[in-house]
Amino acid sequence: MEFTIEDISETELERRRAVYAPLADSVRELIDAVIRTEVPDELIDDARRRIADVVTDLRAAQIDGPYGNRFTPDGAGMPWGNAVIGVRNAIAPPLVTEKVGDGVRAEFTLGAAYEGPGGHVHGGVCAMILDHILGEGASVDGVPAYTGTITVRYLRPTPLGDLVCQSWVTERGGRKKIVRGTLSDADGITAEAEGIFIEPRQWSGAVPPGVVD
Amino acid sequence: MEFTIEDISETELERRRAVYAPLADSVRELIDAVIRTEVPDELIDDARRRIADVVTDLRAAQIDGPYGNRFTPDGAGMPWGNAVIGVRNAIAPPLVTEKVGDGVRAEFTLGAAYEGPGGHVHGGVCAMILDHILGEGASVDGVPAYTGTITVRYLRPTPLGDLVCQSWVTERGGRKKIVRGTLSDADGITAEAEGIFIEPRQWSGAVPPGVVD
Repeated sequence: MEFTIEDISETELERRRAVYAPLADSVRELIDAVIRTEVPDELIDDARRRIADVVTDLRAAQIDGPYGNRFTPDGAGMPWGNAVIGVRNAIAPPLVTEKVGDGVRAEFTLGAAYEGPGGHVHGGVCAMILDHILGEGASVDGVPAYTGTITVRYLRPTPLGDLVCQSWVTERGGRKKIVRGTLSDADGITAEAEGIFIEPRQWSGAVPPGVVD
Repeated sequence: MEFTIEDISETELERRRAVYAPLADSVRELIDAVIRTEVPDELIDDARRRIADVVTDLRAAQIDGPYGNRFTPDGAGMPWGNAVIGVRNAIAPPLVTEKVGDGVRAEFTLGAAYEGPGGHVHGGVCAMILDHILGEGASVDGVPAYTGTITVRYLRPTPLGDLVCQSWVTERGGRKKIVRGTLSDADGITAEAEGIFIEPRQWSGAVPPGVVD
């Protein structure tokens, strides 16, 4: 996959994060409010017009196409457009992952926007998050890996609310890694997954973790 | 899963859809604009405040908790909060599915908000969409079914843009159904999936398709 180098310092990276993260957070609130609002219809149309105005203003200057994979010259990742961890992407919860042993772990909260069956997380969202956490687990040694196959087993419905997802590498051989993972609420595991991940053939060693998620 | 009956006519259902769908569409545009904007920082903060104001106005009256599964007395589904097909949920593309043979099919376009690897759909998003399309396929005979296990095999990266996802039931036995599906771009299949779906033990026959997705 192609990627872009943003010629900025770590300080500038953090400054920009502090500008964009609150904007995306406000959009996350808006997504939730649009699902749950019960205000009169004329206020709905007023809200729509005000949002369209903000869109026009933000689009006055914008990058051409999607955000892409960006890094600073120091190799710090800026996966800010990523659908699962992107701080600029309001679709992303966003997950904040930490390395734990031979894998990664994330604690997060899913609200109304991630619903499938009433009061519960959409099964596809469970699969999406497990895919991401297994993929980051596969890349935790600094060598990125693409998902070959992933199997998700649903043990019981996952309630909306506070959740934990974690992964760990169980096997390595040649360009292949086997990674397992779980999604849990306070009462234990709700879904589990196993994935086969493949390292790219031409691995230069230059891409920080996160680039292939 | 519990569900709510909204005591409204089909006409009122369509009228409400015409009110809320454009609002959610404006938020979809906003999500994209927030990822891609390059306007000066002071305009970013201005946008954040204007969005927060809209959120406050929409939250002046709102339902308690997530949207849930709603139906009209005629049994028309209102899965409007659903993370994949919800017309009120800006996280959802939203997919519009049609019954085709012994399964369902959807054509849709994924932009910057669904990105994983640069220029490509996040693998987890592919899994999410396949899970939904397989689940609807499993329920296309009117009997809902929960996902037991789903396996997704990635054949090549899925580019952002115009895509098609479809599913078909390959086997039925007892409470179990096997469903297969594919995700494709103009050049062919990018990912394929197989799922085992289980019908609920106490199936009353009263819930329209879509309730367990």
